[in-house]
Amino acid sequence: MKIALLGMGSVGRGVLEMIAAKDLGITVTGIADSKSGVIDPDGINPARILKAKKKTGLCGNKKISAADVVSKADYDALVEVTPTNATTGEPGLGYIRQALKRKKHVVTSNKGPIALAYKELKTLAAKNGVELRHEATVGGAIPIFHTLEHGLAGNEILAIFGVLNGTCNYILTRMSDEGLTYEQALLEARELGYAEADPTYDVQGIDAAIKLVILANTIWGNGVSLKDVNRTGIDLLTPDALRLAEEEDCTIRLIAEAIPKKGLLRVSPRIIEKNHPLVVDGTLNAITLETDMAKEITLIGKGAGSLETASAIIGDLLFIRDRYVKRP
Amino acid sequence: MKIALLGMGSVGRGVLEMIAAKDLGITVTGIADSKSGVIDPDGINPARILKAKKKTGLCGNKKISAADVVSKADYDALVEVTPTNATTGEPGLGYIRQALKRKKHVVTSNKGPIALAYKELKTLAAKNGVELRHEATVGGAIPIFHTLEHGLAGNEILAIFGVLNGTCNYILTRMSDEGLTYEQALLEARELGYAEADPTYDVQGIDAAIKLVILANTIWGNGVSLKDVNRTGIDLLTPDALRLAEEEDCTIRLIAEAIPKKGLLRVSPRIIEKNHPLVVDGTLNAITLETDMAKEITLIGKGAGSLETASAIIGDLLFIRDRYVKRP
Repeated sequence: MKIALLGMGSVGRGVLEMIAAKDLGITVTGIADSKSGVIDPDGINPARILKAKKKTGLCGNKKISAADVVSKADYDALVEVTPTNATTGEPGLGYIRQALKRKKHVVTSNKGPIALAYKELKTLAAKNGVELRHEATVGGAIPIFHTLEHGLAGNEILAIFGVLNGTCNYILTRMSDEGLTYEQALLEARELGYAEADPTYDVQGIDAAIKLVILANTIWGNGVSLKDVNRTGIDLLTPDALRLAEEEDCTIRLIAEAIPKKGLLRVSPRIIEKNHPLVVDGTLNAITLETDMAKEITLIGKGAGSLETASAIIGDLLFIRDRYVKRP
Repeated sequence: MKIALLGMGSVGRGVLEMIAAKDLGITVTGIADSKSGVIDPDGINPARILKAKKKTGLCGNKKISAADVVSKADYDALVEVTPTNATTGEPGLGYIRQALKRKKHVVTSNKGPIALAYKELKTLAAKNGVELRHEATVGGAIPIFHTLEHGLAGNEILAIFGVLNGTCNYILTRMSDEGLTYEQALLEARELGYAEADPTYDVQGIDAAIKLVILANTIWGNGVSLKDVNRTGIDLLTPDALRLAEEEDCTIRLIAEAIPKKGLLRVSPRIIEKNHPLVVDGTLNAITLETDMAKEITLIGKGAGSLETASAIIGDLLFIRDRYVKRP
């Protein structure tokens, strides 16, 4: 199976490391970062590119662009792991469209294009007889979409509840366990690299809301978008609120919820019993599915990380390999 | 897709109810319980059989046996949900062998045959170009084998830790939360129908050990059997032990563990931090997989129940339908 890879950040490097380390039957024929690219129909040595990237900051030749790799390389599946732009979806959205039109499977970790244009892209994929897979967009290493597609096949999904943002969960865990203020916990999260310099995207629940939109569209195809999410962040929470929850053997977590039959699509800090499976600590993510047959199923795992996200990408690639492409 | 069903206990009835209620593209052409059977190549009405079973205790004609259904009915997949015999695997083992030899897929919830003869049956299935699937044997509604096969494809599974017996977990939860003695908690579990009159199979860890053997053989193909499991039950636990664990913000759960690199295969009461994802309450089951890429992934769900187990059976059937059999 041949792949082209767009994006040489933490996720892209993780994917290349795993292809180099494991016998997955995957050959890389094109790679691009934001400034350079490389195309080789005979296969590129992933270890060599990782070394070059580390040394020079480039993965290839400045004359070869990501668009060149998408349109000219010979591959079965495009792995699109460029940075998320939640407003336009670009440049990832354009790359994904072009690859699907070339009848190439697409595997992405990029939340922008999937949150903004899931229906359009899924239709385009179906029309061209290829797969569009996005396991890595929600919950990091948690195989939520595989679980929905296979493990729980035949179930009606009635509701979904998730702890989908590791930064918020870390801050709330520290406020709850140590009695820190929001500001103290945020500072700590920044020092540990869990929060950005501008934490708005995480702490105001935007990241969790984007993931909720992706889940809802994938499960119910209900065409919701970010503006449909009733959203409250964690930035106004006080230690007092957490203390009151503690007194009732509860805690507070930022919960993303979708219950279509109630028209509910919400991200907000919720009081929740401490022994509920959704109450996970630190940067973990957790997702509970409420279904008609299996009842409540909860999945817990790391919501981010280079190899953790690579795990989701590789799971998608191997699914495509086994279903559509023969091992070379 | 055509199926034959062996077993009309809680699981078999759940499967028939769901086939009657949902448009799954599944036609039932044979059904048998321990005393009777029915074969109809044109399709049997599941609702009618459920009604007859309730009224007469029989699903069909006393002259038609389960062996007749296996050998004579026209089906793509056998659903084998007869009671578990952990010593001989019979009669399920014989039915499964015969169906596989007839080049029929097999889906089972029966722990006996899978724990005793996994390798033989898997080889027989492969030789005949059919699937042997057993999602329902471990963790009830938790789609653990689908997760291993698809969601975590490409990962090396380094270790597995599980709360695999709902009866024990209920007893330990009550001892921990309410300070009950083992005897008091067992009595309560019996009254609620969570424990058998003779609870040996559950409380001495035999059921959990059988499930651990199934997990280990499925994941690592290491040919282990029940006698290889280092096993300690919960029947000698005192409230004092639980109280001491509580003092350290821990609790005690019956944990099944397999770590092949350490040669560890064990079921025993373990002290575990209360906020660990494996610490679930009541009759819930939980399984943590330790992997190289995704790191720790935990799945939590109902370990038993008619529709919960039917969910696992139907997930397996739909997988076979989508991969091997066209929808009628």
